[in-house]
Amino acid sequence: MSFFERFTGSKQLARAVTAAKKLISERGESNSTSMALEVMQQFQKLEETQRVDFYRALALEFNPEPKDVLKAAQAYAEDPNARTLIALTKVAETPRQELLRRINRAPEGTRAILTMRRNLLKLLDKHPEFAAVDQDFRHLLISWFNPGFLKMHRVDWHSPAQILEKIIEQEAVHEIDGWEDLRRRLQPDRRCFAFFHPQLPEEPLIFVEVALLSEIPDRVGPLVDKKSTPLECEKFKVAAFYSISNCEPGLRNVSLGNFLIKRVAAQLKAEFPALKTFVTLSPIPGFMEWVASGATMEESVKTPALVERIQEAIGLLNLQEKGWHQRLSEGWMPTLASGKERDALSALCSLYLIHCSPKKGGNPVAKFHLGNGAKLYRLHWAANPSKRGLRESAGIMVNYLYDLDRVEENHERFVKGEVVYSRGVIRSF
Amino acid sequence: MSFFERFTGSKQLARAVTAAKKLISERGESNSTSMALEVMQQFQKLEETQRVDFYRALALEFNPEPKDVLKAAQAYAEDPNARTLIALTKVAETPRQELLRRINRAPEGTRAILTMRRNLLKLLDKHPEFAAVDQDFRHLLISWFNPGFLKMHRVDWHSPAQILEKIIEQEAVHEIDGWEDLRRRLQPDRRCFAFFHPQLPEEPLIFVEVALLSEIPDRVGPLVDKKSTPLECEKFKVAAFYSISNCEPGLRNVSLGNFLIKRVAAQLKAEFPALKTFVTLSPIPGFMEWVASGATMEESVKTPALVERIQEAIGLLNLQEKGWHQRLSEGWMPTLASGKERDALSALCSLYLIHCSPKKGGNPVAKFHLGNGAKLYRLHWAANPSKRGLRESAGIMVNYLYDLDRVEENHERFVKGEVVYSRGVIRSF
Amino acid sequence: MSFFERFTGSKQLARAVTAAKKLISERGESNSTSMALEVMQQFQKLEETQRVDFYRALALEFNPEPKDVLKAAQAYAEDPNARTLIALTKVAETPRQELLRRINRAPEGTRAILTMRRNLLKLLDKHPEFAAVDQDFRHLLISWFNPGFLKMHRVDWHSPAQILEKIIEQEAVHEIDGWEDLRRRLQPDRRCFAFFHPQLPEEPLIFVEVALLSEIPDRVGPLVDKKSTPLECEKFKVAAFYSISNCEPGLRNVSLGNFLIKRVAAQLKAEFPALKTFVTLSPIPGFMEWVASGATMEESVKTPALVERIQEAIGLLNLQEKGWHQRLSEGWMPTLASGKERDALSALCSLYLIHCSPKKGGNPVAKFHLGNGAKLYRLHWAANPSKRGLRESAGIMVNYLYDLDRVEENHERFVKGEVVYSRGVIRSF
Amino acid sequence: MSFFERFTGSKQLARAVTAAKKLISERGESNSTSMALEVMQQFQKLEETQRVDFYRALALEFNPEPKDVLKAAQAYAEDPNARTLIALTKVAETPRQELLRRINRAPEGTRAILTMRRNLLKLLDKHPEFAAVDQDFRHLLISWFNPGFLKMHRVDWHSPAQILEKIIEQEAVHEIDGWEDLRRRLQPDRRCFAFFHPQLPEEPLIFVEVALLSEIPDRVGPLVDKKSTPLECEKFKVAAFYSISNCEPGLRNVSLGNFLIKRVAAQLKAEFPALKTFVTLSPIPGFMEWVASGATMEESVKTPALVERIQEAIGLLNLQEKGWHQRLSEGWMPTLASGKERDALSALCSLYLIHCSPKKGGNPVAKFHLGNGAKLYRLHWAANPSKRGLRESAGIMVNYLYDLDRVEENHERFVKGEVVYSRGVIRSF
Repeated sequence: MSFFERFTGSKQLARAVTAAKKLISERGESNSTSMALEVMQQFQKLEETQRVDFYRALALEFNPEPKDVLKAAQAYAEDPNARTLIALTKVAETPRQELLRRINRAPEGTRAILTMRRNLLKLLDKHPEFAAVDQDFRHLLISWFNPGFLKMHRVDWHSPAQILEKIIEQEAVHEIDGWEDLRRRLQPDRRCFAFFHPQLPEEPLIFVEVALLSEIPDRVGPLVDKKSTPLECEKFKVAAFYSISNCEPGLRNVSLGNFLIKRVAAQLKAEFPALKTFVTLSPIPGFMEWVASGATMEESVKTPALVERIQEAIGLLNLQEKGWHQRLSEGWMPTLASGKERDALSALCSLYLIHCSPKKGGNPVAKFHLGNGAKLYRLHWAANPSKRGLRESAGIMVNYLYDLDRVEENHERFVKGEVVYSRGVIRSF
Repeated sequence: MSFFERFTGSKQLARAVTAAKKLISERGESNSTSMALEVMQQFQKLEETQRVDFYRALALEFNPEPKDVLKAAQAYAEDPNARTLIALTKVAETPRQELLRRINRAPEGTRAILTMRRNLLKLLDKHPEFAAVDQDFRHLLISWFNPGFLKMHRVDWHSPAQILEKIIEQEAVHEIDGWEDLRRRLQPDRRCFAFFHPQLPEEPLIFVEVALLSEIPDRVGPLVDKKSTPLECEKFKVAAFYSISNCEPGLRNVSLGNFLIKRVAAQLKAEFPALKTFVTLSPIPGFMEWVASGATMEESVKTPALVERIQEAIGLLNLQEKGWHQRLSEGWMPTLASGKERDALSALCSLYLIHCSPKKGGNPVAKFHLGNGAKLYRLHWAANPSKRGLRESAGIMVNYLYDLDRVEENHERFVKGEVVYSRGVIRSF
Repeated sequence: MSFFERFTGSKQLARAVTAAKKLISERGESNSTSMALEVMQQFQKLEETQRVDFYRALALEFNPEPKDVLKAAQAYAEDPNARTLIALTKVAETPRQELLRRINRAPEGTRAILTMRRNLLKLLDKHPEFAAVDQDFRHLLISWFNPGFLKMHRVDWHSPAQILEKIIEQEAVHEIDGWEDLRRRLQPDRRCFAFFHPQLPEEPLIFVEVALLSEIPDRVGPLVDKKSTPLECEKFKVAAFYSISNCEPGLRNVSLGNFLIKRVAAQLKAEFPALKTFVTLSPIPGFMEWVASGATMEESVKTPALVERIQEAIGLLNLQEKGWHQRLSEGWMPTLASGKERDALSALCSLYLIHCSPKKGGNPVAKFHLGNGAKLYRLHWAANPSKRGLRESAGIMVNYLYDLDRVEENHERFVKGEVVYSRGVIRSF
Repeated sequence: MSFFERFTGSKQLARAVTAAKKLISERGESNSTSMALEVMQQFQKLEETQRVDFYRALALEFNPEPKDVLKAAQAYAEDPNARTLIALTKVAETPRQELLRRINRAPEGTRAILTMRRNLLKLLDKHPEFAAVDQDFRHLLISWFNPGFLKMHRVDWHSPAQILEKIIEQEAVHEIDGWEDLRRRLQPDRRCFAFFHPQLPEEPLIFVEVALLSEIPDRVGPLVDKKSTPLECEKFKVAAFYSISNCEPGLRNVSLGNFLIKRVAAQLKAEFPALKTFVTLSPIPGFMEWVASGATMEESVKTPALVERIQEAIGLLNLQEKGWHQRLSEGWMPTLASGKERDALSALCSLYLIHCSPKKGGNPVAKFHLGNGAKLYRLHWAANPSKRGLRESAGIMVNYLYDLDRVEENHERFVKGEVVYSRGVIRSF
């Protein structure tokens, strides 16, 4: 009597799990297409609570046999050779992976796997015991959605409405206000590129929006201004990545953004040789929260001078007394801040980005770009006066610079805990 | 001092291996595209002997650490849970797999991996110690060339010459004698379908040739007759798979044929609802060799009656004395055989197919179709009077029947050692 | 000194006309592409008043030479043979046609010609002397936009936004209220088909919207209801053409609608063999105006009975006294009409459609469909309660039936002045 | 009783002509598609002799009415205005043109018209009375196959076999010896471009073969050498058009080659900015025949010096006595000619090209390129030692140079009777 029969009386669940087991049996080896369809259909029929049990079955009944693994590991440790290694590899891989590979053989299999993972991810917080299941999904999705298999396409006004509609819905950074707004963002001086998987040809997986400019941008407003006049292409000097959005929640932690940005940069450079500078204009989530909680830093990086500078700035801002939180929420105008306030916030922001970005739990935008090998390049005051921009970072924004000749080195330094930054960033210290 | 520095003084080899190591380092995580290109380029520059050393480096230096694996296996055995399983999975997978995945991210990466495996396969006989390397290649290729990702396209006279040329070169069963011959095989009553990978859009991976007929074919001649008149499509009743050929040696043991045949059958059925019968017309390699070596069978299947029947047939044929081998080589006409000879050979052939197919080392064509779930359907005398056909099977050919409603069950019975056959096959016993 | 030098001092005009003359000279025979580009560019630079002069130059200076034509006509009349006919044809064709053909050879030439004609059509009312110029444009456009050259494509949510945007803008019958409204009209039970010219691949020239229904529609509301639930395709019995719109004003009087409707009908029939009935649901422009002006008919069709019936109906309605015009404008509800009013209006409407449609200046919608060979099929009370619908026809709408086996005959009868109608239409007499 | 009833008893002919008449009647206006199909089908059923009668019917019964034309011409002569011009144009155009336009509306209509003209052209020599019919076909085909509507595509090894097969069959200048030969001609340093009509997407209408070289070619051998090694693209300096072939006999006298060459030149220039020189390497048909018949020239161009030079050369060659004709036929080696012979032939050849090309009936290759605006550029001795090359021009070939900035002017000079040539050509005088 197996787990799921013991714990549930659900026939539908039994059907789904049975279909999965049949699929990884010998019988499924040769005829997996129809059996994979069966698994997909049975899974679809599960109600929400049954799905939890289905994932539980996946978590409990599709694992390597511990004894066999131990035996194979011992044999490999005693005599590490091709034979013992192959034996180990076979026995240590979870049967779940084979299950997913066989589902993927069916028409629409890839889509089904993404759906299954989307569901799973919602349960993961409550059910940490499903972590190994998720790990198997992720492992295979990384292999299948590798950038070598993905097609990068420009999205523009010639693209199918089907795709454009998804861009409107999925834009995560600077909301798109309907088709007219989108239209401006697809004019010749604005570009949008997305990755597509050959199996899902009308599903953008991730997309990036780029503004082609004559100068490094210092404010977000002009970039997303519906009524702005397109710049002539002879004047393009700078490509600014001003928004990057994931569209497929089933691909969480399958990193595609890094590859997309670099491929877009290479393609734009080929199209416009005069483009010399590739930067972002990025928000700084977490900054004001960090200030509000006292601008703490790790001991290891503290110096007396730094500590003093922070204390001074915090004192000057006097956040609580002055009701900053409310001021920001109510639409404080960064342009009305005093010079001293501005200096204090800027200095703190530099520190936050330089010292806190490599830390666990730090600002994810900084982590993403610095981890990609970008350089912390410039801070801009009053760059994003939206409510969210004020609340997150008092309206400050930052450029990260992508110098394709340096990204490898920068990435490596970042992994070791160092943030590469240009001198201008610490001007205000 | 690492292996390859000790054993070789080759700078080029060192460069290639170093590039590979860099690619799986932290540095390669984020910037794998350019590094993957580097590995591919360095590999290309290797001379043949250096390649052996490169594979040796792959075999020796990209393995899991035995101690770590053992420790993780012990932890998992003691407490099998998500955490210990994830830890085990990570440590037990070979770093080679990650290396190959990262190479695959580069443009033309998939092609490079196929090339590397083609080279490797040539060395495998002499270097069984590379078996685990090959296993890693195969493991990933199965995942990447899964039928869900492949596109099936009809190949016809509208296809690019690029593709047709490869069909001519790669046809492995009934040689195509130039473009005119190919042309006949692409007429409306002959179909050719191939699998393609999205990354290699003009490379057929495997293709099958089908004749649409009014009756089950009993001879190969009319199927490949350049001068035959195409049959009108209203008369199509039977689809005969008369040839299936792999085109990509780098995909050895990545089984695609099974999926291709079934997808073709489904598509033809949709196009011509009157098509009721899907059969092959297949050669029987190994049969005459088996007869010549005494028509031995395993003890387990022998019955006195069978043994007697075999002895009688062997006696009648009296192969050696009658110089059969030579007669067949010199173009013996099966139509001139005596009725008794014919009966004897037919009976032996049935036995060979029914009893020897599931055995190790048996006839690979039978193994393929029976393993796909086809049924042994009919034997045909004088069906293939080519030299090869005579030498292999005295000109006998066989139909395997694909009944899509039965393939699962048949496959399972075959895996257990049973050959499903129609009664007509044993008529001649 | 030519016309344009005498009448204008414009250098730009001179440049444009000179370019045109050069293009039809010997020099242009062999090198027309660059010269055609020159004409197009010079034309683009003309200001609005200069354009009038440019068309005047076209009207005056690119005509056949009257003497030559007369001579050729005499020769042909004396001895009508191949030689005299060829001579006549050459000399009687306007050099303007050759000019347009040469412009059309250039990249974007077709687009330029459509633009030129659009401009010309706006001037035609004021400048009847340009009629022969327009005739040349039209003559060639009919030849170039013939249905054999046009591609019919389904427009749906996979179509480029570029195309969909034009559909929204150009819908002339039932306004499309933004992208969401359009989306509903592209669901599986609503179809949209358009003609495209190979030279203008993202420009719909004319499109028709079709509803697939289970019954002949009697009201427009459900057809364009954004919130309606799509009908399952097994229930499709009737295809209703509920809107047809021309998109390209430069193609005025180049009839494409007839061909589009028939090709759509054929294609839908092939896709859904259960579709048996092809009808329109059409407005009746001009009807209330005709009633208001006394419901006059030509003497030839009048009979005493008819006259009496009309008088009776007119009297009952008593339009002026009852302030009908205002009632209709203010949103009169046809459902609130008395039975007698309803009968009177229906009877008059039948008479209007049957007797006035073939007349000059009659209702163009009726002319279009009856001229295509459709049959006047059914009248529907309260079918279109929009302001326009009430004003035009008191909310009455009509189905025209396309019976593809009868369209030739019906067309011929219509050309002779007879309207083919089903008996139901005259029920109310 | 109409013509065809009087002269033939053929029912089939009557059917075909009746269908044609019906198609241009009122009835055909609105329903031409099905009626056009009817004409096409009836035409197809005609036997060869009946076709002659069908064309005769076209020639006799689809003409403008002489009286009407005369009346309209008189009205136009008296008062040339828009109204009289439109009236004239309508009455003077042959109803045949409308017939062909309506046939063209049907699916495959364009193909049918090409077929009809192919048949007609074969009859034209015997039936000069069909000239006006042919004129109508040609007039419309020029309008429909204008270069603005045609797509130019590169033909290469990725093209459908369907297209490549036609290239092999239709190459008219340097025969292609099977698929391997073709393959060499599609390598990166050899290009092939063709015009296609959107209605006939797999039918090349005309194609040109180009060799990309480092120097102006002086012999044909290396250009068509199957075994030559492709030149690296960095070395491309010269594009040599070495072959141009029409594929569609139904398009005779519809000039496309001029446009094709110029569009190819523009495209190659865009792809390889280092390409500076565009030349042909062309045969000189008619040259030896002209020499043999005494190298006569028109009086108007003769000068005493010229006459003397010709006499001298003719005397030296002494064609008849030396049996030149036979020597050339038997494979005379131009490399073995004496210096004097070579000089004499070269001088005569220059004269032939410069003075005889503009004359009626002159060398069509020269007429084509010079008429396109090319310049006579260089003569090459021993450039084409094939039998045909020797017989036509004693193995001499010529480069015509396409200088796109000069083609207009050169064309105009050629039309006036002047051949533009480079000084090198007359070196040998």
